Amino acid sequence: MIDQTRLPLEEVFIECGDYLCVADAIKTMKVRGAPAIGVSAAMGVALGAQNISSMDKAEFLRQFDQICETIGSTRPTAVNLFWAINRMKNILEENKDLDLSSIKKALIEEVILIASEDEEICRKMGENGSVLIEDGDNILTHCNAGALAAVSYGTALAVIRAAFSQGKKIHVYVDETRPLLQGARLTAWELMKENIPMTLITDNMAGYFMSKNKVDKVVVGADRIAANGDVANKIGTYSVSVLAKENNIPFYVAAPLSTIDFNIKSGDEIIIEERSPEEVTHIQGKQIAPTGVKVANPAFDVTPAKNIAGIITEKGIAKFPYTESLVNVRRKT
Amino acid sequence: MIDQTRLPLEEVFIECGDYLCVADAIKTMKVRGAPAIGVSAAMGVALGAQNISSMDKAEFLRQFDQICETIGSTRPTAVNLFWAINRMKNILEENKDLDLSSIKKALIEEVILIASEDEEICRKMGENGSVLIEDGDNILTHCNAGALAAVSYGTALAVIRAAFSQGKKIHVYVDETRPLLQGARLTAWELMKENIPMTLITDNMAGYFMSKNKVDKVVVGADRIAANGDVANKIGTYSVSVLAKENNIPFYVAAPLSTIDFNIKSGDEIIIEERSPEEVTHIQGKQIAPTGVKVANPAFDVTPAKNIAGIITEKGIAKFPYTESLVNVRRKT
Repeated sequence: MIDQTRLPLEEVFIECGDYLCVADAIKTMKVRGAPAIGVSAAMGVALGAQNISSMDKAEFLRQFDQICETIGSTRPTAVNLFWAINRMKNILEENKDLDLSSIKKALIEEVILIASEDEEICRKMGENGSVLIEDGDNILTHCNAGALAAVSYGTALAVIRAAFSQGKKIHVYVDETRPLLQGARLTAWELMKENIPMTLITDNMAGYFMSKNKVDKVVVGADRIAANGDVANKIGTYSVSVLAKENNIPFYVAAPLSTIDFNIKSGDEIIIEERSPEEVTHIQGKQIAPTGVKVANPAFDVTPAKNIAGIITEKGIAKFPYTESLVNVRRKT
Repeated sequence: MIDQTRLPLEEVFIECGDYLCVADAIKTMKVRGAPAIGVSAAMGVALGAQNISSMDKAEFLRQFDQICETIGSTRPTAVNLFWAINRMKNILEENKDLDLSSIKKALIEEVILIASEDEEICRKMGENGSVLIEDGDNILTHCNAGALAAVSYGTALAVIRAAFSQGKKIHVYVDETRPLLQGARLTAWELMKENIPMTLITDNMAGYFMSKNKVDKVVVGADRIAANGDVANKIGTYSVSVLAKENNIPFYVAAPLSTIDFNIKSGDEIIIEERSPEEVTHIQGKQIAPTGVKVANPAFDVTPAKNIAGIITEKGIAKFPYTESLVNVRRKT
């Protein structure tokens, strides 16, 4: 995988030989973005399983659980992490009567399936969402919900890519997304590679451009969506949604169905990851605040469903109120 | 003056021997903040006038105008710059029949008066605003409206300092304020020096803490206030005001009467300074975005009067609607 912490100045690839390397890559955000976290987690589980040397099944199962637990403890907010681990656990369960080498093979096949499904899902999301984008639109996005956040194509950026490839003349405002600058480092890099017109802004400029009628749509990704449509996404997403509402700009979320956590009723139940103060006090190693300053660093916030004009999935677009519409979209074939 | 671009890691003082040095310090934001820009500009004019060697009055006046023009062209948004230059021009006008050495003396006396008035004004603003702050309040501020932005004490921070010195238990959320990080570098530094409890956050976290009921009041400074109460202030202030409104949090502006531009009816007439793209693409010299990326960098935005619960001045607090209340506050003795 590409080391996203080194972008955009260096394109460095990491090759993981064991699951601990994968767990570390997720935890330190060398790989990030809900779908990419899911696929990487599944790959980590499969890799860990391959490396179990014991020929004893009980011992294999014990070590398998340990692997799932380690990978599952890397990041608390993105539901795709747990969704992917559960898919791997289910495959193990389905095949547990087979010999160990067949089980290992089944796990690898499942990972390959998850990865190819992710690509297909992203393309469908892009197609479905692109109908919302009109020729001439200025679209604002926050964080990186691009190819880097998935196997390829992305979620929010899939919508933008699809609209652009249809020949629509669009322009994207890219929030830099402090503290880790995924917009400035990753989204800007992706869009520039494909010559999609864009302008980089700091997070606190989004409202200004909205108030000047320079933004027609907002499209973002999601890390976890509650059954009622509340969306946990990168810190600052809530603020963007409030500013969009104030300026009558439709605010869309693009996410695969695997990001929807039907087990939780509302966003109140979503655990918000608190990350290290150094992410705020230091930028790329440079200290920007007084030594010893007290810092808060929540990595996500929750955008209430009422601020969201539509949730774009691979099976179609759900509209407010979401408790029914999300279930209906999931049922579609 | 202290070089604010080097804070908080280094406390370096600049001594200016000529007015070009002062103009450069304002332009490159070694000194910034509306009141501080005003006082520095007046000092630059006085300094420039002292250095005019010609004994011919017509030539002196020509060079004086040139000095005022150079200093006046450094930054377009903060009205205090023009207010201070006009005070110096008026002193020249009042004394133009005197000999050159008396004129130069009068200019210096005016600068000393402006500086001491600024201190007094800030203290009064603090006193007036402190009645709005209750024991236990969490106050959010944006950018730096502190001692560094004035001669001492500050505007928004004057209110916070006064409340704290009255023994009120308060806590301040400090927006880091991209791109130039005045919150992280300057406000955090000032508050820590005085042991006022604070937490540094990135700009895009402000909405999150508001939605979690962690913010009771917002207090910010201003660079220019229109006659109707629209406030130009550091980019991101508008967003904070919208988020405060959404969460029913009173949003206050603290500014001396010299920041009110009664010549303009509304914020639409305020020129917004566009600064260099490097302020966004580089942080303290470190490149954080792809080479060649397109950037927007408006330095200010305009908060509509309707989002502002009160404008705190040295003569009292004006309330919405402001067209009358600001005039009434100015009339007070």
